[in-house]
Amino acid sequence: MLNQTNVKLGKVRSSIRELFEYGKKRKAEIGADNVFDFSIGNPSVPAPDKVRRTLIDLIENTDPVELHGYTSAQGDYSVRKSIADELNGRFSVRLTADCIYMTCGASASLTVTLNALLNEGDEVIAFVPFFPEYKVFCEHAGGTLVPVACDGAFQPDLNDFAKKLSGRTKAVIINSPNNPSGVIYGAETVKKIVELVKGCAQPVYVISDEPYRELVFGEIEIPFIMNYYGRSIVCYSYSKSLSLPGERIGYIAVNNAAEDFEEIYAGILGAGRALGFVCAPSLFQRLIAGCAGQTSDLSVYKANRDRLITCLTEYGFEFAQPDGAFYLFIKSPDGDAQAFAERAKKYELLLVAGDSFGCNGYVRLSYCVSPEMIERALPAFKRLADSYER
Amino acid sequence: MLNQTNVKLGKVRSSIRELFEYGKKRKAEIGADNVFDFSIGNPSVPAPDKVRRTLIDLIENTDPVELHGYTSAQGDYSVRKSIADELNGRFSVRLTADCIYMTCGASASLTVTLNALLNEGDEVIAFVPFFPEYKVFCEHAGGTLVPVACDGAFQPDLNDFAKKLSGRTKAVIINSPNNPSGVIYGAETVKKIVELVKGCAQPVYVISDEPYRELVFGEIEIPFIMNYYGRSIVCYSYSKSLSLPGERIGYIAVNNAAEDFEEIYAGILGAGRALGFVCAPSLFQRLIAGCAGQTSDLSVYKANRDRLITCLTEYGFEFAQPDGAFYLFIKSPDGDAQAFAERAKKYELLLVAGDSFGCNGYVRLSYCVSPEMIERALPAFKRLADSYER
Repeated sequence: MLNQTNVKLGKVRSSIRELFEYGKKRKAEIGADNVFDFSIGNPSVPAPDKVRRTLIDLIENTDPVELHGYTSAQGDYSVRKSIADELNGRFSVRLTADCIYMTCGASASLTVTLNALLNEGDEVIAFVPFFPEYKVFCEHAGGTLVPVACDGAFQPDLNDFAKKLSGRTKAVIINSPNNPSGVIYGAETVKKIVELVKGCAQPVYVISDEPYRELVFGEIEIPFIMNYYGRSIVCYSYSKSLSLPGERIGYIAVNNAAEDFEEIYAGILGAGRALGFVCAPSLFQRLIAGCAGQTSDLSVYKANRDRLITCLTEYGFEFAQPDGAFYLFIKSPDGDAQAFAERAKKYELLLVAGDSFGCNGYVRLSYCVSPEMIERALPAFKRLADSYER
Repeated sequence: MLNQTNVKLGKVRSSIRELFEYGKKRKAEIGADNVFDFSIGNPSVPAPDKVRRTLIDLIENTDPVELHGYTSAQGDYSVRKSIADELNGRFSVRLTADCIYMTCGASASLTVTLNALLNEGDEVIAFVPFFPEYKVFCEHAGGTLVPVACDGAFQPDLNDFAKKLSGRTKAVIINSPNNPSGVIYGAETVKKIVELVKGCAQPVYVISDEPYRELVFGEIEIPFIMNYYGRSIVCYSYSKSLSLPGERIGYIAVNNAAEDFEEIYAGILGAGRALGFVCAPSLFQRLIAGCAGQTSDLSVYKANRDRLITCLTEYGFEFAQPDGAFYLFIKSPDGDAQAFAERAKKYELLLVAGDSFGCNGYVRLSYCVSPEMIERALPAFKRLADSYER
């Protein structure tokens, strides 16, 4: 008998990936322009030209044995140093290169962190709505995901959080800007979360999963967890900010203000080994050092958001105002997310049913797509809305 | 309390990685030319120029959104197709793209495979000497590694193998050309292994870990496991054949002749998800499709091997004749591998004590180094040998 947990995971796939595959098939059938694929967070904005130029420069002017060689398991020193320096400059922290561990992207950042922290039976708290793979990652690491409810604006329900904290709580995951709602948790919310965490008898670690850190619309400041709490770990990826999702490059930053900083970092090194990561891709590690502080042109996402908010509101759809990331979390008109997503498919609109995000009755729309596709899709949204009024 | 297994793993590091880090430090102290680093399998031969040209071409002429975007979890279809076609042509098998799962390198190929196969308490058999991380990977997947002894020529002791097979055996790992001995298992050996495996009441999977498949000196043929056994899985990496160890690119090929092929493949998809792999790096996936059948100029390794065999034999060292890979597994003159490796350090020779390979009294020498370094190192080897004669 094979490992049935993983066989089952492989058969069901994530709902997002499944729809992504359906979309590829459907586009082949009726033409890419006729499918309105809002399913996956694959950035639609190209990487900045600096990425192309830096890659070419690295490939043309670096000894290939060095360029493509193993780095240290935690990542190349100068790359880690450049990341620590950037974080120190932006957030007034005092990290060193040895606080940074380079990873194969955000999912790897999370699995490595969770495998460093968790023992069998530990609980990890996440605020709904949350990225469905959190559950998979926690369970693989021997833990249990404990969801905490949100209010109508998708902000954490702190009373529920207080109730869910227990002697078994090992970690809390914060994801802001949030996938799938796009909302941001303000400083007051983070302070209250930290206060409650500090009330636990045992050490509780706060993991900030923040691949959307740079995707914020307007003058909103996102609190940086290390400024609020010692036992904190930041999981980051360049997938969204530099439009490199397929290249699998990100990092874990461990707060050196944590009393047990060295234990945490050692656990991360060990977990990376046990999971088979060896080192993050070397060319893209070096690219990151050469593109510090750069982002893709993220203004398209804001324009997409504004256009969709205006039109979908007009058509009668309901959702919370997203201040970041590139998602709208839309309420199903009849409360049934699965049926909503299925009905949307009839209009060639690919939306992810949100039940797997721990929040029933919503679908996720990823608007990291071309503005042209949005324009082409608007009549379909109108017809979808109308179909509920008949 | 953090996960102590992983904290400990992170603190002790692998003996190879530890020596690699020592080497980096020592080179900074006394100059790179004065340290003779035979510790790690980081190819010394550059990637073929075709790699450089293909990378540049891909970067210059592919839409960056597509080039750096997510691929399907199992890898880009055309990349998988090109790998299946290549294997079919070389080994007379009939694989399809859907037998291939792209990975972040050989370690990932192994961890994903083991997590697909193993349940808590399962046993995995490996023939000594073996890559020490096998134990780490098996244990993370809930299994136990069961070592099988070898004979004086580092070939599997089949009597011991017959004894170690049990009702708990889930998988057998074959690694040929072998790290660390460089020996190759011939067709007769593979046939006998398969025969014994078939004698088990339960299904037993044979995993062929073959990153050194292309590194063979002379007219020796390496048996391809799928030609001998249905329930077989090939774990491959381009680290050695294309000199891309830092880029983390490889694949798993599942034999579609296995009765439970679809279950195995689903388990692999699920395990990849649970471990946080998402997809293999997209640029390097596409590179692989563009460089099918290419290898680095591997002739340097043969020249290195021949030179070292001649000189080290003359100095009085003993080892089995390596027919592949780029390692010599040298007998410690007084039987103490740790002391041998420590003594070698005094002569600035970095050799890995082999006890962690499951075979006491040997050190591993990686000769994927420049011929010039070998020439500079020879007097140090001579002095090391002499030091044992005093």
